[in-house]
Amino acid sequence: MLTVGVIGCGYWGPNLIRNFINLKDARVKTASDLSEDRLNHMKMLYPSLETTTDYKTIIADPEIEAVVIATPVSTHAGIASEALEAGKHVFCEKPLTRTVEEGVKLVELAEKADRTLMVGHTFVYTAAVNKIRDLIKAGDLGDIYYMSTSRVNLGLFQEDINVVWDLAPHDVSIMNYILESRPVAVSAVGHSYIQPDIQDVAFLTLRYPGSILANLQVSWLNPNKIRATTVVGSKKMLVYDDIASLEKIRIYDKGVDVIPHYDTFGEFQLAYRYGDISIPKLEDAEPLKIECQHFIDCINGTASRSSGKHGLEVLLVLDAADRSMAAAGTEIKIEYPKALK
Amino acid sequence: MLTVGVIGCGYWGPNLIRNFINLKDARVKTASDLSEDRLNHMKMLYPSLETTTDYKTIIADPEIEAVVIATPVSTHAGIASEALEAGKHVFCEKPLTRTVEEGVKLVELAEKADRTLMVGHTFVYTAAVNKIRDLIKAGDLGDIYYMSTSRVNLGLFQEDINVVWDLAPHDVSIMNYILESRPVAVSAVGHSYIQPDIQDVAFLTLRYPGSILANLQVSWLNPNKIRATTVVGSKKMLVYDDIASLEKIRIYDKGVDVIPHYDTFGEFQLAYRYGDISIPKLEDAEPLKIECQHFIDCINGTASRSSGKHGLEVLLVLDAADRSMAAAGTEIKIEYPKALK
Amino acid sequence: MLTVGVIGCGYWGPNLIRNFINLKDARVKTASDLSEDRLNHMKMLYPSLETTTDYKTIIADPEIEAVVIATPVSTHAGIASEALEAGKHVFCEKPLTRTVEEGVKLVELAEKADRTLMVGHTFVYTAAVNKIRDLIKAGDLGDIYYMSTSRVNLGLFQEDINVVWDLAPHDVSIMNYILESRPVAVSAVGHSYIQPDIQDVAFLTLRYPGSILANLQVSWLNPNKIRATTVVGSKKMLVYDDIASLEKIRIYDKGVDVIPHYDTFGEFQLAYRYGDISIPKLEDAEPLKIECQHFIDCINGTASRSSGKHGLEVLLVLDAADRSMAAAGTEIKIEYPKALK
Amino acid sequence: MLTVGVIGCGYWGPNLIRNFINLKDARVKTASDLSEDRLNHMKMLYPSLETTTDYKTIIADPEIEAVVIATPVSTHAGIASEALEAGKHVFCEKPLTRTVEEGVKLVELAEKADRTLMVGHTFVYTAAVNKIRDLIKAGDLGDIYYMSTSRVNLGLFQEDINVVWDLAPHDVSIMNYILESRPVAVSAVGHSYIQPDIQDVAFLTLRYPGSILANLQVSWLNPNKIRATTVVGSKKMLVYDDIASLEKIRIYDKGVDVIPHYDTFGEFQLAYRYGDISIPKLEDAEPLKIECQHFIDCINGTASRSSGKHGLEVLLVLDAADRSMAAAGTEIKIEYPKALK
Repeated sequence: MLTVGVIGCGYWGPNLIRNFINLKDARVKTASDLSEDRLNHMKMLYPSLETTTDYKTIIADPEIEAVVIATPVSTHAGIASEALEAGKHVFCEKPLTRTVEEGVKLVELAEKADRTLMVGHTFVYTAAVNKIRDLIKAGDLGDIYYMSTSRVNLGLFQEDINVVWDLAPHDVSIMNYILESRPVAVSAVGHSYIQPDIQDVAFLTLRYPGSILANLQVSWLNPNKIRATTVVGSKKMLVYDDIASLEKIRIYDKGVDVIPHYDTFGEFQLAYRYGDISIPKLEDAEPLKIECQHFIDCINGTASRSSGKHGLEVLLVLDAADRSMAAAGTEIKIEYPKALK
Repeated sequence: MLTVGVIGCGYWGPNLIRNFINLKDARVKTASDLSEDRLNHMKMLYPSLETTTDYKTIIADPEIEAVVIATPVSTHAGIASEALEAGKHVFCEKPLTRTVEEGVKLVELAEKADRTLMVGHTFVYTAAVNKIRDLIKAGDLGDIYYMSTSRVNLGLFQEDINVVWDLAPHDVSIMNYILESRPVAVSAVGHSYIQPDIQDVAFLTLRYPGSILANLQVSWLNPNKIRATTVVGSKKMLVYDDIASLEKIRIYDKGVDVIPHYDTFGEFQLAYRYGDISIPKLEDAEPLKIECQHFIDCINGTASRSSGKHGLEVLLVLDAADRSMAAAGTEIKIEYPKALK
Repeated sequence: MLTVGVIGCGYWGPNLIRNFINLKDARVKTASDLSEDRLNHMKMLYPSLETTTDYKTIIADPEIEAVVIATPVSTHAGIASEALEAGKHVFCEKPLTRTVEEGVKLVELAEKADRTLMVGHTFVYTAAVNKIRDLIKAGDLGDIYYMSTSRVNLGLFQEDINVVWDLAPHDVSIMNYILESRPVAVSAVGHSYIQPDIQDVAFLTLRYPGSILANLQVSWLNPNKIRATTVVGSKKMLVYDDIASLEKIRIYDKGVDVIPHYDTFGEFQLAYRYGDISIPKLEDAEPLKIECQHFIDCINGTASRSSGKHGLEVLLVLDAADRSMAAAGTEIKIEYPKALK
Repeated sequence: MLTVGVIGCGYWGPNLIRNFINLKDARVKTASDLSEDRLNHMKMLYPSLETTTDYKTIIADPEIEAVVIATPVSTHAGIASEALEAGKHVFCEKPLTRTVEEGVKLVELAEKADRTLMVGHTFVYTAAVNKIRDLIKAGDLGDIYYMSTSRVNLGLFQEDINVVWDLAPHDVSIMNYILESRPVAVSAVGHSYIQPDIQDVAFLTLRYPGSILANLQVSWLNPNKIRATTVVGSKKMLVYDDIASLEKIRIYDKGVDVIPHYDTFGEFQLAYRYGDISIPKLEDAEPLKIECQHFIDCINGTASRSSGKHGLEVLLVLDAADRSMAAAGTEIKIEYPKALK
């Protein structure tokens, strides 16, 4: 039975509390937040929960073995360092830290302290993303040519990070995970429409080894929420729509590639498809539950799907994208630090 | 009654023949193609049609007032010049020519000869694209922030042009038309997966005046055909899906932009939408019929929606994209020639 | 603060427990179930909950003011009677009872005891159904002509009731609610494919006053879950898809009703739509939360949207459907009892 | 080379003319219509076509071997009889005739005259319907339990037949064809909302041998066009949406049929699907082209998929539906006449 403290009860923290509470192998002893209101709300939902406005109470509690951090990004490095130094295991929401430097230090600190450091890249715990990874590994899609993703919605506008740091961590963590690879270069173009100097729309192009390209669209300005990922391989194409409640993955089998001549408008319209489509059934579990259980398993020795190192790899891509946007889209090569060699 | 000759009866030519034949104000006297088979097929469909394997027969025919060109791109400049010099009006399939230089010459030649030169940018004749233009002009979408497009399918692989020259003319002509503007800079990343040195996948970012960005995806490698355009404005967002047979345009009204805290997974999932969606009814006419009629009207003095100059503006974007791809995505500023000032 | 006891922790009971616990004005003191396993699971989720395998403990507890019943249908009448006689308010899952006779007695008993009797017709608490009711009341759809519904899925096969009693209560309660009316006659055809004498597929036709027809399809044999309701009026048509996560209601505006002659296959295909479509934004609340709050409000004097009487009206339709199925589809007129006059 | 005359150039006739003209083995010599306007329009499209306002000119023309009838239903029997008696082969639009009696006589006449009599049940020539038939024959769906269909749209209101006779022939011909069977009984409920005594909405239930039920919805009052057919078998379920341009058939594979207990609203929502879905690729040919070619093949000895006898079987179902509607939905047993034994 792992005793957990959760720091931050804003947007995502309550989901983490609920999931850790529901696990057989964990209990949440204490939750902290700067807002009394949020704490009262948590207390109403979970009467046995202890609450505090000072996160240091959690860090100092010898009974608490693991700390879950769901606070604004700029505070991650500080809180996580304190927790690791106090001998706690750390589960930190994404992105891991605000800068690459902070991330490197944190990864090194976790290694030195021999504690588990995990990042909340939830998507690598979904049935859909694991299905895609399995299909790629089994060669079902053939050689991967390129990927494109859209992750757009209306707000939540962040004040301490731009849209790339807010949304792209999902896509980069997914792509690194399904390809078992990491990009070598990034070019990005973005713009700040609403808040000065904080991009709210950006288009990124990543180059992975083996001539795999990836085009990412991230935006806070779309009234309609889209979370779509397309993976095009030499044999098949896959479209992953995370918004769809039932049919998240569609696999398009490539058929005839010769299109006959058309003499009427009607026949022309009928010519759009090329092969069978299949929509595999996916398991129904809540990804966050799996992720929380995985954190416990990692503490007990399992290799992590979203370790601090994975989180740091993602930071390097975000950082390169920032630098490319500052240089009008010029491609930036990524230099992975020693900690990731 | 306009007498027309059609050069090229391959993929698109038969559609042009059928539409010109069905117009009250035109008749198709002659069709030419290098393949006897295609000519025989045309003859079977339209017994009164004259056919020839030598397009110069059409150019030389004094009865023919207008020439329609649906041949491979690299032949456009040559055939169109001959036709204009012979005093014919010219309707040329897109892209106008293989190079910017050829395009400039052709535009100047048409001006000198005082003949109508029109490019087959069919989409500017669709009900959907004109609806979008009207909505933007009326201010319904608010200030335009950015656009993104996907134009992807499996093949037809071209041998004389890359995927940018094959597919992006549609998107660029649509965007120039609905914004009544033209881009000032282009950056592009592409790759040649199948044929050496002919990109089959590319991602373009265009900058229009007024900080409007546009991200384009074009690909010959997708087993699934997509023709989607998203326009995000300060008031509303619009999605145009040209594949949809009935519901081509969806307008998303922007609603609440504050998202409350969520305590359960279920409520969280319900939070995706932000306002009403409306799907306007569009007229049912075949765009090509309208385009062919428009060509006749232009000959009679109407200002063209897709004149040679419009076609040349598109070429300048394609050319800049090629240069950007060659420079690893570096942004290329577009210098519009004197003919377009 | 209302003190509640919940009887039955199987499929639906846990949802009721969770919702009553989360309400400010209620607390769940005790839950009962025949299965120790289910009770242990409830205990794990809500440590402060008391549990018992004997529901009579709940009935006998003077502190408990209201009893929530989520047990198999055949036990509803017995448990609810005991609860009402013990002076408790009763919230009973649908259908209210196994027979019309039981239902009549229960409604009369609640009236005599002056206690609130409410039936769990959850759908009348959804944003979608209330939107439809509002649109009809406001005359937006014009005169209602007819409705059709599909409520089909794979299982859960019931052992004590057929598919009509299992699924049709939803549709009948929705239709009675949105029309503010009740059917005068029913004809039904069904078949028992899997279990002898328990219909697993049935088609019902209801006649409402004012020549309004309704066709219902209910089935336990569909691998795909459908919950669709179509309402056709003289002005507009509405389609309600309860499975859709985002776009539950579509309103089709009626346009041109003259279809021109078509000469080509292509134009013919383009002629399917007749007017604009609109997709209104709906509120995101969990219906069950609203329903549970409504139960408390009803105890405090609010008129119920799904009172015992409403539940009994539904039973009369189900009973008539059973009799029609036994008579090969012959139409059965419904005689509403004195209690519903 | 078959010489054809087409009688009727209204809604559907032009499609028949175009298709017969485009076939290698046929030529359309003459078209007749009561409207000079329609004839002029045909002449403009096909300059070599002869036209007449008197269909008897076609019947009397010895050069014409086959007559295609696309006139109002009530005229079918008279024109077709004259044509058969004049030794012509006859292709008649659906429904075959206005009454069962007329249909019986026509079938007997064709047999006596030894001429091909074919009915325009176009759907049995579509790739989708033939795919369904193949899947059923191969046992892929298992035992067929039941079918349900919706064939609804706004208008075209007919003056000589009700909505059952207008739309249900499609569904009945499809179901008879895919099951290789014919119904034994029909019950139907309908209503006349717009024109007195001409039902514009109807719900039919058909019983086929082997306890197969079919529920049909037909309506002229729906602003939205639907053409959907669901076939539920013991192994798989199939949904056929004829409006979809690309994904007409979806096959749902049946998976888990035990649904676990749910404790949160979120997980509950995720439980909708039960197995993989597959969307087979279908051929792109225009069904009418295949049907017209099939008519020629039948004249040359091929067994017909939609012979006069098939058309007569459909009439018997329509007639039984009319009688059931007149008897408030009472089930009517179908007595197939000697000509169909």
